[in-house]
Amino acid sequence: MAIEQLGEIVKDIHPYITAIHIREKQKTARELIQIVELLTKNNIPLSKIMINDRADVALVSGARGVQLAFHSLDTASVKENFPQLRIGSSIHSYPEGLNAKEKGADYVLYGHVFHSQSKPGKIPKGLEELKKLSKLDIDVIAIGGITPDNTEQVLQGGAKGIAVMSGVLEARDPLLAVKAYSKALNNGGV
Amino acid sequence: MAIEQLGEIVKDIHPYITAIHIREKQKTARELIQIVELLTKNNIPLSKIMINDRADVALVSGARGVQLAFHSLDTASVKENFPQLRIGSSIHSYPEGLNAKEKGADYVLYGHVFHSQSKPGKIPKGLEELKKLSKLDIDVIAIGGITPDNTEQVLQGGAKGIAVMSGVLEARDPLLAVKAYSKALNNGGV
Repeated sequence: MAIEQLGEIVKDIHPYITAIHIREKQKTARELIQIVELLTKNNIPLSKIMINDRADVALVSGARGVQLAFHSLDTASVKENFPQLRIGSSIHSYPEGLNAKEKGADYVLYGHVFHSQSKPGKIPKGLEELKKLSKLDIDVIAIGGITPDNTEQVLQGGAKGIAVMSGVLEARDPLLAVKAYSKALNNGGV
Repeated sequence: MAIEQLGEIVKDIHPYITAIHIREKQKTARELIQIVELLTKNNIPLSKIMINDRADVALVSGARGVQLAFHSLDTASVKENFPQLRIGSSIHSYPEGLNAKEKGADYVLYGHVFHSQSKPGKIPKGLEELKKLSKLDIDVIAIGGITPDNTEQVLQGGAKGIAVMSGVLEARDPLLAVKAYSKALNNGGV
């Protein structure tokens, strides 16, 4: 998807969401800064923008925080050196969630919960481990194959929130899609 | 080159050099941290280690600084947000050098000066613009095709120092090569 198109979509949908993750792994730092600028020009508040992997880009751009994966810098090191940033840790198991919590992550992104277009051929995690994770006293955001129809299930499984990629960005009408998710979240909120 | 092999080479040569640049562009943050750890285990002081592009990795690893290229974060932004780091700016022209100086770079890396294995088919810059750059009141480190034989020329062209890749790392005897450079630098120092 062209970045300009993303800007247009996000302008419409951001009032319904709490965070937008920029996870363009092939982009340079300079390009990531340009994406953040494009989003803020489209009235997206910096406080809703999270940057994948690069704490330096997050800090310099003024974004809210950084989403760290296994290949990223250590969560505790980022916490110590970038106290201004909100830190999300991408995890795939309960032990990884425990580790992220102990290292000071502000929340974990757990998945993929259901079959997902982005992870073809990989077996989804399902809801069991999510339930265990939800006892950890750290916010768990679920990702992977989440639809408005299964959102309630995910919340009942202990997720504090959901993250969606294709479900919104590849929807025929992204605004309509995000409203459907928003409604499901409000109905299923526990 | 395997990283372990690099560690062995660098252990021998570091007394003769002032900085080692890690510019493994395809490595993840986690891998870059591992490289820094391997180097420090081989007794390379952190004060000699520069990280390419990633200010966050430089900060977290305790390295001396970060080398920024065109595709990197803006020099002034890095200077402002990472005052602990030494900042090198990679440039290819006098206007870029002027810009780097105005934005607060601590030095510029200028090249490639001569024909270089790393830039096949690209026309080298030669020494003319180097001379102009050397008037800028910022340290200019020259890179590209520099050998012990032409080092004196480069210093007389106004370079404060030289940076070498294949000339050392691909030498049959890297220690011997670095000693030859070192001798040329001491002879040609102005």
